Amino acid sequence: MNGGLPEPVLIVGCGLIGTSVALALREQAIEVFLDDARPANVEVAVSRGAGKPGPVDNPGLVVVAVPPSSVADAVAAALSAWPDAIVTDVASVKDNLGRRIAPHPGASRYVGSHPMAGSERSGPMAASGRLFEGRAWAITADENSDPRAVAAVRELATLAGAVVVDMDAGTHDEAVALVSHLPHLLSVLAAAQLNGAPAEHLALAGPGLRDVTRIAGSDTGLWLEILTGNATKVRALLENVREDLDSLIAGLDDDTNSLAGVLRRGREGTRLVPGRHGAKDVEMATVFVQIPDQPGELSRLWAHTGESGINIEDIRIDHELGRPVGLVEVAVVAHNAEALVDALTDRGWSAYR
Amino acid sequence: MNGGLPEPVLIVGCGLIGTSVALALREQAIEVFLDDARPANVEVAVSRGAGKPGPVDNPGLVVVAVPPSSVADAVAAALSAWPDAIVTDVASVKDNLGRRIAPHPGASRYVGSHPMAGSERSGPMAASGRLFEGRAWAITADENSDPRAVAAVRELATLAGAVVVDMDAGTHDEAVALVSHLPHLLSVLAAAQLNGAPAEHLALAGPGLRDVTRIAGSDTGLWLEILTGNATKVRALLENVREDLDSLIAGLDDDTNSLAGVLRRGREGTRLVPGRHGAKDVEMATVFVQIPDQPGELSRLWAHTGESGINIEDIRIDHELGRPVGLVEVAVVAHNAEALVDALTDRGWSAYR
Repeated sequence: MNGGLPEPVLIVGCGLIGTSVALALREQAIEVFLDDARPANVEVAVSRGAGKPGPVDNPGLVVVAVPPSSVADAVAAALSAWPDAIVTDVASVKDNLGRRIAPHPGASRYVGSHPMAGSERSGPMAASGRLFEGRAWAITADENSDPRAVAAVRELATLAGAVVVDMDAGTHDEAVALVSHLPHLLSVLAAAQLNGAPAEHLALAGPGLRDVTRIAGSDTGLWLEILTGNATKVRALLENVREDLDSLIAGLDDDTNSLAGVLRRGREGTRLVPGRHGAKDVEMATVFVQIPDQPGELSRLWAHTGESGINIEDIRIDHELGRPVGLVEVAVVAHNAEALVDALTDRGWSAYR
Repeated sequence: MNGGLPEPVLIVGCGLIGTSVALALREQAIEVFLDDARPANVEVAVSRGAGKPGPVDNPGLVVVAVPPSSVADAVAAALSAWPDAIVTDVASVKDNLGRRIAPHPGASRYVGSHPMAGSERSGPMAASGRLFEGRAWAITADENSDPRAVAAVRELATLAGAVVVDMDAGTHDEAVALVSHLPHLLSVLAAAQLNGAPAEHLALAGPGLRDVTRIAGSDTGLWLEILTGNATKVRALLENVREDLDSLIAGLDDDTNSLAGVLRRGREGTRLVPGRHGAKDVEMATVFVQIPDQPGELSRLWAHTGESGINIEDIRIDHELGRPVGLVEVAVVAHNAEALVDALTDRGWSAYR
């Protein structure tokens, strides 16, 4: 027993997310049992210290972390098998799932949840007890939820280091359609057009293309289940995108106002993206530093930025095209940029804004 | 005179790119004169050490760096005003421009060029002599180009630290439509949908949304000119995107094969994005390190990564939602990941893969 978490915890599904939850709980000395339709997954998770092989007779909390299409059945099975257990899941789409579970006599013991974390890798080997550190973890209780169950799932998220965000299932699905599913599909659309392009075209690519297409590299099968599970909300957004896309095409033909309108709305939209530290009103600036691409140089640079006493908000290293010299982009709060440039220049670096 | 660069160089247009070219040349002790329709821009550029106020009687090389819609006229004016000068420009679209300049009697002295660099900021204050360091610089000579002019523009790009990529103007425009203009528009489409979203929806946003929407924050007026200047090629790509978008929408309705097909093509497309060091075949891995969000901690971490002797390929700092602890993602060549985790763990860090 740790805070309000009912033990032991049974993890059903030892993939990336399930095993990561287990590892996070083990770091808090919670008793964890592991189950998976594939015994090999349990073996790997156990070998990584994620818990003991399950199932167990009388779990206090069951965390269902199976692929999206199997979640409803697995939650119902858990509610039936363990009539005293609290049950949650970690699936990316919540509303339909809740409806499917609602008729179950034990439905009040179920509270849906969704940690906003993932990886381009999958499986228990890619798991980490720190995966949820600082990330949002949505909890989608409703008026039928047992308060004891809600408290237990909130405790689970908190123990994993996540930030609890309470919302109803419908709002959750609308939110993830906008901030996760739609950006994923637009990233996919950008990346899909690259197939068949001559290598010389790609030689002109810069960091912009890399950023836009990064998330399109994720697991196709998982995303197919996520998107079809949230089809109504994703489709509504895609239809808005199709309208905007038509405006862009019309704008290229002759109606430049409609093109300008979409560009402007896009620029305004970027201001709504949560920034560093949740402080979206703080103006940031980038300081560029030239750096030889070899061990030790980053270390020297980092030591010197540390000596400057200026807090670094983000860093990006850009050394493309096989050049021996890279460019490090250091993001700082705007009013610190000049001081950082001076501090680094004094220490012999080529730094500039 | 430096290598093959004909001096003095006259920069026409002292915005971000023009002033950055001037600063890069001044670092090589090239004689540079600066001209701009707005005298204030020249003043700022001169005060930053970018050269002397121009124009000049007899420039060896004229670099036209005015907004896209004025480039053709400015190039023609330069060819007429200085009958011995070599003239180039830095505009993002090349084919129509070349056609408009071709009838000029001095057209063989003109060679188009396009440095693949920019910033979300603009104007001479944002300029930097290192802006082009390691970036591609396309040079779009044709069969009528004077070889002396081609050599001079190649020398210009090289002196600025860029990597010369020779291609014809049509190929260039097709390439930038794919690797720059289209990703920009898809980023805009993702960001545009955020307008009007409730703050609680945005609370679930993670690094994926930030990456996809970053470049949509750039200057709207400049992008309007770039996109209308490359309308034919961008439109062709947008029409492909519209087809794929329709497949996605159909896939959400019932034809999951068409949805899966686009997801797969997107994932395959990400493999074509040039990676670090142009070495796209090297498998990378990410090591996560937990770090208190205060000055000095990054410095310590960087010092310790330096001691490990392992070369760091990229770093990303992720500390969202107002948490005092951040997560640093350190990218290394995959076979070094375990060693880096060990080295950092030995030194007291919470590091994991």
